[in-house]
Amino acid sequence: MKGHVYLVGAGPGDTGLMTVKGLELLRSAEVVVYDALASHSLLDECPDAELVDVGKRSCNHKKTQAEINEILVEYGRQGKRVVRLKGGDPFLFGRGAEEALALREAGIEVTVVPGVSSSISVPETCGIPVTRRGVASSVTIVTGHSMDGGEVDWKALAKTGSTLVILMGMSNAGWISAELIEGGLSADTPAAILTDGTRDTGRAETATLGTLESTILEKGLEAPGIMVIGDVVKERDRLGDLG
Amino acid sequence: MKGHVYLVGAGPGDTGLMTVKGLELLRSAEVVVYDALASHSLLDECPDAELVDVGKRSCNHKKTQAEINEILVEYGRQGKRVVRLKGGDPFLFGRGAEEALALREAGIEVTVVPGVSSSISVPETCGIPVTRRGVASSVTIVTGHSMDGGEVDWKALAKTGSTLVILMGMSNAGWISAELIEGGLSADTPAAILTDGTRDTGRAETATLGTLESTILEKGLEAPGIMVIGDVVKERDRLGDLG
Repeated sequence: MKGHVYLVGAGPGDTGLMTVKGLELLRSAEVVVYDALASHSLLDECPDAELVDVGKRSCNHKKTQAEINEILVEYGRQGKRVVRLKGGDPFLFGRGAEEALALREAGIEVTVVPGVSSSISVPETCGIPVTRRGVASSVTIVTGHSMDGGEVDWKALAKTGSTLVILMGMSNAGWISAELIEGGLSADTPAAILTDGTRDTGRAETATLGTLESTILEKGLEAPGIMVIGDVVKERDRLGDLG
Repeated sequence: MKGHVYLVGAGPGDTGLMTVKGLELLRSAEVVVYDALASHSLLDECPDAELVDVGKRSCNHKKTQAEINEILVEYGRQGKRVVRLKGGDPFLFGRGAEEALALREAGIEVTVVPGVSSSISVPETCGIPVTRRGVASSVTIVTGHSMDGGEVDWKALAKTGSTLVILMGMSNAGWISAELIEGGLSADTPAAILTDGTRDTGRAETATLGTLESTILEKGLEAPGIMVIGDVVKERDRLGDLG
């Protein structure tokens, strides 16, 4: 009885944007380990599985990454067929690589099943293509939460001409936009704030780099949200919602 | 009888990495418009649909984007339920936004269904997370084909600390790496060349930025392929294939 852990990308929200393979694995899992999912309705797909919420605080303590790794290894050692469900794609700011490495080192079989990343899919369903011929020939996906992945050189990013898709950065919108403007981006650069992903409660507001923070405050926009900076944002005026 | 065109991301290859919604739409389409797909086996899912290959050359002439747009509009006007199948994600270098705009302007209903992008999924199944806590806090996805999307400022990209995922750039590997080195990236920066995506014939070769072009030539690697530049490539040594 050999365990196998599947790191499965849950995509941006509903089951329709999960991959066929990911959903099949979820439905046949013995154990499902999850935390901050865009939608808990995904868990309706695995009513018979043991559900392990590693995002839940208990005794004022949130599980560390090391503890999550250990939980995955332990179920693997028990010979279970485990789905580790992660929002979006498991390896894009998901710390999935750390989990994969822990499993590898413990000799547990591990497979990664990519998912649709909200960083590209949420803008596009709001009518914002992250790249566009003649407008942006690259896109940079970056964490706005400085704890995730060390220092970001915002001034250097400002000089690339890349569309910027900033995840987990809404509460830092003020200093991020200041850094980008200091780096050379115009305060008039189009910007968008997209909250709540592909859910029905999702909102899309446009602004400029200079009014990014004030727009978030005035409109009462709340995390989780994605900020998009670049001329591609203007496409939304012509395309509108496409989801 | 109102037409509706769905711009559907086919993902990186097999149906398992299509989204649930995308596959359902493909199976129920009256018309499927496609071009360069990673795998034509996807078309086995829609045996009763009218198949329109807009990538095929006829009389030494390849269809222009304007002609493709017109084909989509025409089927929409006929009231058809059309799936426009595009490799990876429709809006990431897919020119899907141009098609969506043409349909909007013609008053045809259009919906975009995001797909798993090969830019993230192919590296991850090869054991390369495009971001990694403490290693890379951003990833830039960029076209290496200078005709797609205007000028890329490679020297500016070299200064960001971002992992670089270069699509459609294998034949330009020589000058791209020269530009990146001139921009300040070390010739020793780890690099990978991943060809043929998630197919069984897929290959993953590692190199450095300085040996990128010579590795492609010596190993006989052929497009289509993805090049990844950055310290995250070293993770492959510990993770190996994860697909």
